[in-house]
Order: sequence, then structure tokens, then C-alpha cells
Amino acid sequence: MVSKNQIKLITSLVQKKYRKQHQLFIAEGAKVVEELLQSNFELVNLYTTRPMFLEVSESKKSIISDSDLKKITALTTANDCLAIFRIPQEKDIEKEGLIVALDDIRDPGNLGTIIRLCDWYGISQIICSEQTVDVYNPKVIQATMGSVSRVNISYIDLELYLAKSETEIFGTFMDGQNIYKMQLPTSGIIVLGNEANGISKIIEQQIKQKITIPRFGNLQLTESLNVATATAIVLSEFMRSY
Amino acid sequence: MVSKNQIKLITSLVQKKYRKQHQLFIAEGAKVVEELLQSNFELVNLYTTRPMFLEVSESKKSIISDSDLKKITALTTANDCLAIFRIPQEKDIEKEGLIVALDDIRDPGNLGTIIRLCDWYGISQIICSEQTVDVYNPKVIQATMGSVSRVNISYIDLELYLAKSETEIFGTFMDGQNIYKMQLPTSGIIVLGNEANGISKIIEQQIKQKITIPRFGNLQLTESLNVATATAIVLSEFMRSY
Repeated sequence: MVSKNQIKLITSLVQKKYRKQHQLFIAEGAKVVEELLQSNFELVNLYTTRPMFLEVSESKKSIISDSDLKKITALTTANDCLAIFRIPQEKDIEKEGLIVALDDIRDPGNLGTIIRLCDWYGISQIICSEQTVDVYNPKVIQATMGSVSRVNISYIDLELYLAKSETEIFGTFMDGQNIYKMQLPTSGIIVLGNEANGISKIIEQQIKQKITIPRFGNLQLTESLNVATATAIVLSEFMRSY
Repeated sequence: MVSKNQIKLITSLVQKKYRKQHQLFIAEGAKVVEELLQSNFELVNLYTTRPMFLEVSESKKSIISDSDLKKITALTTANDCLAIFRIPQEKDIEKEGLIVALDDIRDPGNLGTIIRLCDWYGISQIICSEQTVDVYNPKVIQATMGSVSRVNISYIDLELYLAKSETEIFGTFMDGQNIYKMQLPTSGIIVLGNEANGISKIIEQQIKQKITIPRFGNLQLTESLNVATATAIVLSEFMRSY
């Protein structure tokens, strides 16, 4: 059984203001929940339709019906479990190595994919402008497939941070240097821009090295690459020599 | 005005069997429709809410209301136009250069992103297993952003095609050679596998070179990269020297 109040609380967590108010977020599906359980995230409660599911103390586990799960899921098709976790305290920004900076990424799927890519390439810090989609948005959590537990994500005044930073700052543009012909360092900040508008004018002023993924198509008509795709190529290129 | 029969025809085109029966597909939004108009696709009719929109002969243009557009759109949020195009005759498979082969890609967004990537990197031929999602699925057309007009996509018996092929065949696996340490050729077939299961056992037998994008994360826990992300990195790596 899930009480009306619980349903109200859980479904409210789809909205950022209620996540902030309660300091809670939801995660769904065995894969994602398991990865979060194995990391340092504090489980508040697990709702599942499968009694023998996952090793969680009985006091934090509620066995519920399929129809109850449907009432609390944020997904179009409910999985077999939904967990509520506490939002951890923000950690200090790690300043070593490569850092990925996001200037107003709005699509949850894109942020999720970028977190997964950073995890793959061993990049442990992402810094986001305050307008970037919230990492605890259920769609972001879903898209990270658990790698959110291994990458530190900080929301900051991006312009101010970059202005004060003493490391090299790279950004992707249509008219930058050919990334395949550059010597790329092992530390620095790589800025990626908004889906529709790219990197904003204000942030552009902080960028010291403009980089471009060259087009090979004959007709040169392809407009641009999706930001998650571009991130994949850029991180691959920075990391390929190590 | 859109008649009931027209609504019935247009909305039926979301399904593959009706696209096949009528040899028609739909595209929505100015960007995508414009790119298809500029290529060799034959327009059957354009439905738009904006009278001055796009250069199309009057006989093929219907000015309709927002509420009529809502009745025919395949999108959650209707754009300002929907066009019906004729499905072109399948062209012969181009055998020169690099070819991307898809073994049961099921997600329309992934196929769309892969088509866009091929266009970016100047790869003009994609071959798909018959189980791969249909390129004329409205969600695929939407995700290609028009680049479907510049890449030839063929549905074939993939196993048979690979068995008969005399070119080098590469495939992405978790346990292949480190792609960053290989000499990659300018021609060959690159096979990418299904979202959940990767490359099938039958297709695996046809692959001569297994390749891997190495993980850099310390904990080595990230399960895998999304297939569209992996395609981005693999194509970048094949093309970066040219």
C-alpha cells in the first residue's frame, strides 16, 4: 500500500521546487537503483513489486502492487521499482584534470548522456550554469544509468567561475580550430553550449581556445551535431592519447 | 480544411504497414521539410498554418488551422507544418568507402542520430538488418534533421550481405582491440549492434576485427555507452586522419 500522502510526496518530486524543499529525488528501475545503493546515496524508501528484490533493510522496503507503482512512477511505462533517495550535500569542485562545463543544457536526456560519457572517460567533475537542467530531474537520473554516483556535478555562476579560473578554457564552436589537429592538454575546462543557441555570448568571452569538430560531408549542409554527440567526440579526442 | 479521409490517411502513416501500402511518409517542421524539398524527395502535399511558408506550388499546399494540424501531427507538440512525401525507390548499395551497418537498432532517435553522424562524416551508405527501425518512421525522420536526404539507407539480409562482402568488417564489442591504438582503413564496413544485446551471435561470426572504445573511469563500472554515442566516437576515430 502507498498512502495518499506518500503518492502526493513522490509525484511532487518530479518538480525541482519540491525536490529542493524535501531534499529528496526519485530513481526507477533495478539497474539505476542498484548503482545508487552501492554508492553513497542515502536510501529513504524503496517501493517494489518484487518481494525478493535488492538487498535493502525491511524497514525501508515497501512491497506494492503494479497499480500502486503506476500511481507513483514518473516514467511512461513503470519499471518494477521506485526508490526515494536523499539529495547529498554538494561537494567542493575538483580542480584537477579535465572538467566539463555546461552552459544551459536543457534536455534531460542530453545531460544524462553527458554524465555517462564523463564517467566512461574518467572525468569526475561537471560544472553547470544555473540554467542547466537539474541533475535530480527523474529523466536525467534515468538517462545516467547510475553513473551519476561517480561524477560530481556542481551548479554555479559559470561566468564568474570561468573568469576566476586559471586553467585553459576550451569551447566548441562552428568556427574554431580543427580539434583533430590540436595538441590537447590533460587538464582544462571544456565548455559545451545550449542545444539551440550554443555557447552564450557572455560565456564565449571567457573562452581562450575555440575548437571545432570538422565536417566531412561533401555538401557541407549538415547543420550541427547534437550536443551529447559532440561531447562524445570531444572527450574521445581529449582522452585518446592517454 | 483537412477532410476526414485525409486525416485517416495521414495518421495511418505512423505505421510501417500503411507507409508501405501507400509508399508515403510524413515529415514535420520547417527545417526538416525544407531540407527534403531541396533534395530529390517528391512532395505529395504540404499542410501548413502559415500561408507564406516555403516555396511550394499552390496545388500542393493546404493552409490549415492549428486545430487541424493537431489532428494530423505525429508529434506531441505540433510544429507549423506537416508534409507528405513519396518514399523513393531504393537505390543500389554504394560499395566504396566506409559503410555503417546496423544490426537491429530499435530506437528511432538512435537511428536518426546515426544518420546525422554519417552525414557529418561524409559516410553516404548505411545498411540495416531487416529488424532495424524503419527510416521513414516519423520519429526517425524528425531526428535526422534533414540529413536523411544525403545518406543512402538500405534494408537487407545483413548476415548474407556481410558473408558475401570482400571488404574489411569491423564491429564494436566490449572485448575488442583498443580503437585508439589501431590503424584504421578508409574503406570497410563498421557494424553497430542492438541497444540491449549488442551485435547478435550470427552477425558476430562475420566480423573480422573486433574493436572497443576503452574505458578510462577508475572504477570501471560504467556498463556501456549508448549506441549513438559509440557511433560518434567510432566514426570520429575512423575519419580523424583524413
